[in-house]
Amino acid sequence: MNTEFVNPFLESIINVLSTMAMTEARPGRPMLKEDNTARGIVTGVIGMTGNLARGSLAITFTEPAILTIAERMLGEKMTAVDEATADVVGEITNMVTGGAKRILSEKGYTFDMSIPTTIIGENHSISHRSSAPVVVVPFETDGGNFFVEICFEE
Amino acid sequence: MNTEFVNPFLESIINVLSTMAMTEARPGRPMLKEDNTARGIVTGVIGMTGNLARGSLAITFTEPAILTIAERMLGEKMTAVDEATADVVGEITNMVTGGAKRILSEKGYTFDMSIPTTIIGENHSISHRSSAPVVVVPFETDGGNFFVEICFEE
Repeated sequence: MNTEFVNPFLESIINVLSTMAMTEARPGRPMLKEDNTARGIVTGVIGMTGNLARGSLAITFTEPAILTIAERMLGEKMTAVDEATADVVGEITNMVTGGAKRILSEKGYTFDMSIPTTIIGENHSISHRSSAPVVVVPFETDGGNFFVEICFEE
Repeated sequence: MNTEFVNPFLESIINVLSTMAMTEARPGRPMLKEDNTARGIVTGVIGMTGNLARGSLAITFTEPAILTIAERMLGEKMTAVDEATADVVGEITNMVTGGAKRILSEKGYTFDMSIPTTIIGENHSISHRSSAPVVVVPFETDGGNFFVEICFEE
C-alpha cells in the first residue's frame, strides 16, 4: 500500500481530537496488521471510493480512551459505552475521513465517503477484506489507547 | 429512504446464497431499525458511494446460519466462527453488493463499492451513522437466521 494514504489520516485524527476533545493523541509505530485480535470495545468504520483507489478505515477505541474523549466532547460524565458513545465515534470517524480526504485531494486523489457504521462489543475483531496490506497505528492519549487501521487498494 | 434501494439487495442475496451455497434464503417483513440489539456473531459491512446517493450495507449472521452456509461454500465441516468464516462473509458481502449495484445501475443509480470489512464478536451491535432510516430485513434459511441492514442517503 502506498504510504501516502496513511499520513493524512494520522494528521487528521491528531487534529480532530485536539480541536474537538482537547486531547493530545500520540501515534506509535505503524505496523502491518497480521492478526485480528480484538483491540477495543467500540469501532467506527467507513468506506472510501475514489478515482485512483478504494479503501476502508477503522478506528477502535479502548473503553477508558473513548469515555474520556466523549466526556470532553459532550461535556458530561460518561460511565459506560452506549449509543451516545457510539455517536461520538461515528462523528470522529466522519471528521477524520473528511480531513484526510481534503489532504489527499491536494495530492491528486479524490475520494467519496460512505456512511460510517459503528460497532459496539466486548472483544470484537475487525478484518479488512482485501489483498492489500492493512496498516495499524496505535495511539496513546492521557485517557487510554486507540488504534487506527487503514487499508487501500490502488 | 427510497425503497428502490432495498429490493436490489434482497434479490441479490437470495441469488448469491442460492448459487454459491445451494441455500434458499426466505425474507421476512422489512422493518425500520429502532434499536441496536445484537443480532448475530459475524457481520460484513460495506460502504457505497454514488452519483445520487451514498449508503452502507451490513449483513449479520447467527452462528448456525453462517456455519451452514460456509460449509456449503467451502465444502468442509465448520465448527466455529473464525477467519475462514469471516472470509466467506466478506465474499458474500462483496457479491451481494456487486449484484445490487448492477440492478441499481439499470435504474440510473451508479455506485462505487468500498473494501468490505468483517466483524466477529459475540453480542456485537451495529449502527449506521446517518439521519436516514435503516431498513432491516430478517432472513430464514434451513441453517438459521441472518439479517440485512440497508441505509441510504440521497
